[in-house]
Amino acid sequence: MLNVYDITDWVSAHPGGDVILRAAGGSIDGYWDIFSIHKNQYVYDILDTYLIGYVDKVDLSLDGSRLAVAHDIEDPFSDDPVRHPDLITRTRKPRNAESPACSIEDNFLTPNDLFYVRNHMWVPTVDQDPDDHRLTIELADGSTKSYTLRELKARFPKRTVTATLQCSGNRRAHMSEGSGRKANGLPWDVGAISNAVWEGVMLADILADAGFDPRSSQKDKDVKHVHFVGMETYGSSIPIRKAMDPYGDVLLAWGMNGEPLPRDHGFPLRSIVPGNVAARSVKWLQRIALSDDESPAQWQRRDYKCFGPNQTAVDWDSAPAIQEMPVQSAITGVRLGHMRSNGKDDNGNAVKGHPISMSGYAFSGGGHGIVRVDVSLDNGHTWFQARLLDDGSDDGDDGHSNVVTNQPGQSWSWKRWRFDGTVPQVTFHDSQDGRKCTHLVVKAIDDAYNTQPESYAATWNIRGNLTSAWHRLLVCTDCSSKS
Amino acid sequence: MLNVYDITDWVSAHPGGDVILRAAGGSIDGYWDIFSIHKNQYVYDILDTYLIGYVDKVDLSLDGSRLAVAHDIEDPFSDDPVRHPDLITRTRKPRNAESPACSIEDNFLTPNDLFYVRNHMWVPTVDQDPDDHRLTIELADGSTKSYTLRELKARFPKRTVTATLQCSGNRRAHMSEGSGRKANGLPWDVGAISNAVWEGVMLADILADAGFDPRSSQKDKDVKHVHFVGMETYGSSIPIRKAMDPYGDVLLAWGMNGEPLPRDHGFPLRSIVPGNVAARSVKWLQRIALSDDESPAQWQRRDYKCFGPNQTAVDWDSAPAIQEMPVQSAITGVRLGHMRSNGKDDNGNAVKGHPISMSGYAFSGGGHGIVRVDVSLDNGHTWFQARLLDDGSDDGDDGHSNVVTNQPGQSWSWKRWRFDGTVPQVTFHDSQDGRKCTHLVVKAIDDAYNTQPESYAATWNIRGNLTSAWHRLLVCTDCSSKS
Repeated sequence: MLNVYDITDWVSAHPGGDVILRAAGGSIDGYWDIFSIHKNQYVYDILDTYLIGYVDKVDLSLDGSRLAVAHDIEDPFSDDPVRHPDLITRTRKPRNAESPACSIEDNFLTPNDLFYVRNHMWVPTVDQDPDDHRLTIELADGSTKSYTLRELKARFPKRTVTATLQCSGNRRAHMSEGSGRKANGLPWDVGAISNAVWEGVMLADILADAGFDPRSSQKDKDVKHVHFVGMETYGSSIPIRKAMDPYGDVLLAWGMNGEPLPRDHGFPLRSIVPGNVAARSVKWLQRIALSDDESPAQWQRRDYKCFGPNQTAVDWDSAPAIQEMPVQSAITGVRLGHMRSNGKDDNGNAVKGHPISMSGYAFSGGGHGIVRVDVSLDNGHTWFQARLLDDGSDDGDDGHSNVVTNQPGQSWSWKRWRFDGTVPQVTFHDSQDGRKCTHLVVKAIDDAYNTQPESYAATWNIRGNLTSAWHRLLVCTDCSSKS
Repeated sequence: MLNVYDITDWVSAHPGGDVILRAAGGSIDGYWDIFSIHKNQYVYDILDTYLIGYVDKVDLSLDGSRLAVAHDIEDPFSDDPVRHPDLITRTRKPRNAESPACSIEDNFLTPNDLFYVRNHMWVPTVDQDPDDHRLTIELADGSTKSYTLRELKARFPKRTVTATLQCSGNRRAHMSEGSGRKANGLPWDVGAISNAVWEGVMLADILADAGFDPRSSQKDKDVKHVHFVGMETYGSSIPIRKAMDPYGDVLLAWGMNGEPLPRDHGFPLRSIVPGNVAARSVKWLQRIALSDDESPAQWQRRDYKCFGPNQTAVDWDSAPAIQEMPVQSAITGVRLGHMRSNGKDDNGNAVKGHPISMSGYAFSGGGHGIVRVDVSLDNGHTWFQARLLDDGSDDGDDGHSNVVTNQPGQSWSWKRWRFDGTVPQVTFHDSQDGRKCTHLVVKAIDDAYNTQPESYAATWNIRGNLTSAWHRLLVCTDCSSKS
């Protein structure tokens, strides 16, 4: 017996939109073999709610070809680009892959081919001359204006902005493991975040040129949101205030680290919304619309939101879409050296310990700068300050000066940090396998003095979004420490 | 023997400025009897560092009158206003007093006479017609322009802004108690926060009228900070971007909840900087200066900052002055009812528990709205959502709509919350005195999805600023619960 589902009500909520109808009237198995991201309990749970009956194969009046198998179906991912082998792939179709920790350690600006990849569908192909790619803008009165990429490049002042993009699911694996409760979604480790220089034009300039004028038009005055739509149908929106803020640095970008956007990152045109969750920086951008309401897309209304740890059956409308992100930090590298004596304590006794080097990043949303990174070698009982690297200068606080003043708002890049210290011998506790272990911890503080929550359990949410609890890492000495 | 101190180097750092010199050459005891805020270990510690020697009374060539006693000294606090008896006084001279919890429960807008009082010195007196009070503005080129209050009222558009002011020390007592480490400063409970409607003119309008024009003047373009100086010498500054932001709502205010400013709250003129720590909303305002640097005042450079829990000898210049504040919440009221049965559990057994009602506030800096308040009845193991009251409408999210969209930036007021539930009998544990007790907890989440840290110990800082760890409250049943 085969299950029969009536997914009429789901079509509009389906992340891939109408593409779901390709499988109508036949077996979904072949499609799910390609779109393997569906093979996940929470997707099966959604499917179950649409079960309306059963049918025996022998009763099917369909000819056999409707029971599609993967090799019969045109694979929309067949034109996806080849990726760097060092990317850590979480799903292949669509490709979702994180930046390796070594890249974060080595680079303030993530190399394009090591920038984390977050695709919701296949990578669209551009058959024409990319400069002929056309962006359509729908104004509040319904009229439209369009620009080719060539026109955008020629007619408006160019701007570059260095900005970190972070997936709302970054560190989701930690939330599931740390709380003991699985959160739905891709099990990202620390690498769903990367940093680049973006080149393009200011969205505010284009909207003004297209005719948006809230000072003289009531319809424009009522506009509250700017919608972005990608070639693959992904959609999302940002508040108009962010779009028009002269300090907001929202770009329509065609360049990434001095090169044209790679296909995985939105070639030929994307939006870049610094300080906001990366889900608002829409790739393969082909349409912008001004509206008094948020984007109707799944990814605005039914996905990138957070709820309380007890809220497992959620009212999506009760929480706001994620825009600015909370303060975040992670450990990306640890080197634990062999035991050595590092001087004497106050009583003249020799102190023994393992030298340790740690590295990582810290980042906050909304343009907030990182003012301090605290590191603990003993599971949060005592703390030290990490050294913030003198990377970039986009926030006016380049680390050269000892005097830190609180100028708000344009710290769009992560701060990388380093810590060198010694884990005293007494800090280690015995693990089950006879090694000596301790928990390293990092937490960051931003310039609004927000800091990270301690507990995964208390910030758990069903979608596993915005995992920002203290990053804890268990490190153990090797056998030689017993001697 | 009497101690002799050379405080030459301290004069410029003294919170009260030159007034310290009134006591030069004689005994400080009489002065400290009046300025009793000095009788604090950390002040004695500062004083100790200036000890240069000893003198015997008999060797003093001074006549006896120099050994001042309090009744010989003109008390600058003698003209301070009479305060409402319900205010909870923390120090009398200067007066520092918090708003009673019942006022927070009863009022979205705090009545003027129950608004918390944070004075650094005595309350200045205004002898002339208050409309003749003069505000002087010093521009970047050193030129000045001045306005009487009468001119401000007559010549510029009036604006009202509803905004919460919160002392950076609010909940400091919790940090000291919760961490077991005393933090320096006034031991505020939950009431160093209040909310009011402020009436005045936009600071940006006044600066523009005074001639500030960063588009045509390089000197003005270099301006980064706006300094405020009060009649009693208190000084502080804010970033120019906040001052000029059309959404920033920074006021020069003369009205509070429909009345002239009370003397304790800045009569006849003060700045109001919504979303920033209250230390930037300067009372008894008489001078504004534009500068490329922060205010040199003690309260900008040497006080309202935070450091790591390990940083007990601080480099003041290494941390930014507090401007925007982190997300905060507190419990202001708890009513625990008598044990009753509240239905049956899944196995059909009667469930017994104590009905509980809780109330409190949540607030975040930088105009961030509160999107959720989580309450726990079992010390943070399980969570519920509190109900957010439908107070005010300044943030466009008035609670009437179930759909919450994330429009950034102008949520300047606290959100009050209520929770009604039942504490199951099994949740209570035995206390030493035989009663049954449990810890209630509250934490809030703002629209950047920042949330509060869990641990007082991990956020402890020597000045006890920005205490925002989960507010935990131990509640116990009364004797009748034993029956």
